[in-house]
Amino acid sequence: MCVAVQSQDLDVVGIGSAIVDVIAQADDEFLIRHDMVKGSMRLIETEEEAERLYDAMGPAVEMSGGSCANTMAGLAGLGGAGAFVGIVKDDLLGEVFTHDIRSIGVEYPASAATDGAATARCLIIVTPDAQRTLNTYLGAASGLTADHIDTALIDRARVVYLEGYLWDLETAKKAMVAAMQAAAASGARVAFTLSDGFCVDRHRPEFLDLVEHHVDILFANEAEICSLYEVEEFDDALQHVRGHCEIACLTRSEKGSVIVAGDEVHVVDTHPVEHVVDTTGAGDLYAAGFLYGFTHGHDLATSGRVGAAAAAEVISHVGARPETDLRALVADLLD
Amino acid sequence: MCVAVQSQDLDVVGIGSAIVDVIAQADDEFLIRHDMVKGSMRLIETEEEAERLYDAMGPAVEMSGGSCANTMAGLAGLGGAGAFVGIVKDDLLGEVFTHDIRSIGVEYPASAATDGAATARCLIIVTPDAQRTLNTYLGAASGLTADHIDTALIDRARVVYLEGYLWDLETAKKAMVAAMQAAAASGARVAFTLSDGFCVDRHRPEFLDLVEHHVDILFANEAEICSLYEVEEFDDALQHVRGHCEIACLTRSEKGSVIVAGDEVHVVDTHPVEHVVDTTGAGDLYAAGFLYGFTHGHDLATSGRVGAAAAAEVISHVGARPETDLRALVADLLD
Repeated sequence: MCVAVQSQDLDVVGIGSAIVDVIAQADDEFLIRHDMVKGSMRLIETEEEAERLYDAMGPAVEMSGGSCANTMAGLAGLGGAGAFVGIVKDDLLGEVFTHDIRSIGVEYPASAATDGAATARCLIIVTPDAQRTLNTYLGAASGLTADHIDTALIDRARVVYLEGYLWDLETAKKAMVAAMQAAAASGARVAFTLSDGFCVDRHRPEFLDLVEHHVDILFANEAEICSLYEVEEFDDALQHVRGHCEIACLTRSEKGSVIVAGDEVHVVDTHPVEHVVDTTGAGDLYAAGFLYGFTHGHDLATSGRVGAAAAAEVISHVGARPETDLRALVADLLD
Repeated sequence: MCVAVQSQDLDVVGIGSAIVDVIAQADDEFLIRHDMVKGSMRLIETEEEAERLYDAMGPAVEMSGGSCANTMAGLAGLGGAGAFVGIVKDDLLGEVFTHDIRSIGVEYPASAATDGAATARCLIIVTPDAQRTLNTYLGAASGLTADHIDTALIDRARVVYLEGYLWDLETAKKAMVAAMQAAAASGARVAFTLSDGFCVDRHRPEFLDLVEHHVDILFANEAEICSLYEVEEFDDALQHVRGHCEIACLTRSEKGSVIVAGDEVHVVDTHPVEHVVDTTGAGDLYAAGFLYGFTHGHDLATSGRVGAAAAAEVISHVGARPETDLRALVADLLD
């Protein structure tokens, strides 16, 4: 047993979609004209449809994204050890994704498909209120299957972190189940994010079962957790999830976050931000901070505060990956 | 004559390199390790060399750039009418460049090469002092020749704006000469930026001749104008350029800018910036603002202040293209 514990050299193995974000600013009228629901994520079926939307968008910035991958980048930025599993194609966006995640120190097994759909992209509209609306063409990322789950990698992890978004794909869902089984076998904790309110709507019964029986650490924002339990009030959702899941981290934008673990409940304030520019990645970076704290022996409240600090950094600029030294930012919190 | 004037529906036609920027942050030690001179631009000869440097860089953001193209994007952002001439390849970065410049309203004639070198990229290192160090692989952009200079387009311009960087390429230089001849024939003013101190070093005699005989509006920063006249003191350079060129706009970073036009001299302060993040594009956007003011009948001092405001916007975030509404930013200045 002791040997198995010593071999856990990775704080977190994340499994998710390998996506490059294409971020442009637009007004609310643009969302209406293109039938987008502000703050939500919708899937784009074909590359042609993605091209059409891209053509309508204003000047854009391209940078690596993907919910779980953003979390892994944040974890690495904090000094944590992580690996990411997700599929790209061997095209330019695939090269960009691979470069970015490896260059920040995340272990990323080679996974570029040589044929099939192009590397996934997420067309993100940022409105003047700093809200982001996502349009995702999954492309190569949807090629994730159970075959990509390397149990030797899972064996090295303290936490296996999965994104709910992948539940939209039947084969990727099987990959997630395989990862959870491998985690159960190796003794790794399973962390899971509900990803998006509409995603929860699509998979409520399965997500409820997951949360109760297979997930040790749940991440959800207010809309997602309320959707999961079909309640209106945050506090009602809080009472539901309490006892339903070992640890639940519930984020509430400017109201901070609430962490529930059985009898333990922490209400954590937001970290100060001078000017909110783009909320893309806020939840992803909160998860990064929490998981860093959690896997480094810090208590739940401290871990939540590290999450809040990492989220504050990422919403103060365009893009979902940290741009400044997260270690320096959280040093005071971890003294 | 009257017909010719009425047909000038473009404020500025810009001719330059069509480049996508790849921007990463690094410390000063990174510059030393890779023999880079902080704040300068160096050319990378091969795509392989560009790949090697990219591999060494940290996580990056990709966005359209190119000095002259940044200026045209700024001009369009201010509400000006512009066209850009520069060559890309029909690859993903070429698509990104084309999308971005057209989506902001700049006329961009189709120019994607179907074979040959890849679309140009500029690997930019931003150090903690917000200085940027550029490493440019020109690729397809170096395919610009005199054949790409459409005199019908030049005939429509009030100002033809050229970047000094192109002087490094023999065929592109011929394109610039052709553009200046077309401008002289149509009555358009010729604007020129010295681009970079080292670039001035490489072409001093030719640049001196250009400034004296062919350029109506010169843009230069302090290092460039001092290099041109081989003097140490800014004021010495100022006395040299006065009378040597019809209008010279000399930018001095935090010291503001000086505009000289014969007997007229204006000393224009910087526009307030809360936090300088990345100085990439400062000179390009200053030129955008000045040319917008100049082509819309504003006096030199007002045009300089519009330039300062546009520069302030672009240095307050990562990247060389404006991210906020420049029209709103300068509205007070143009009342």
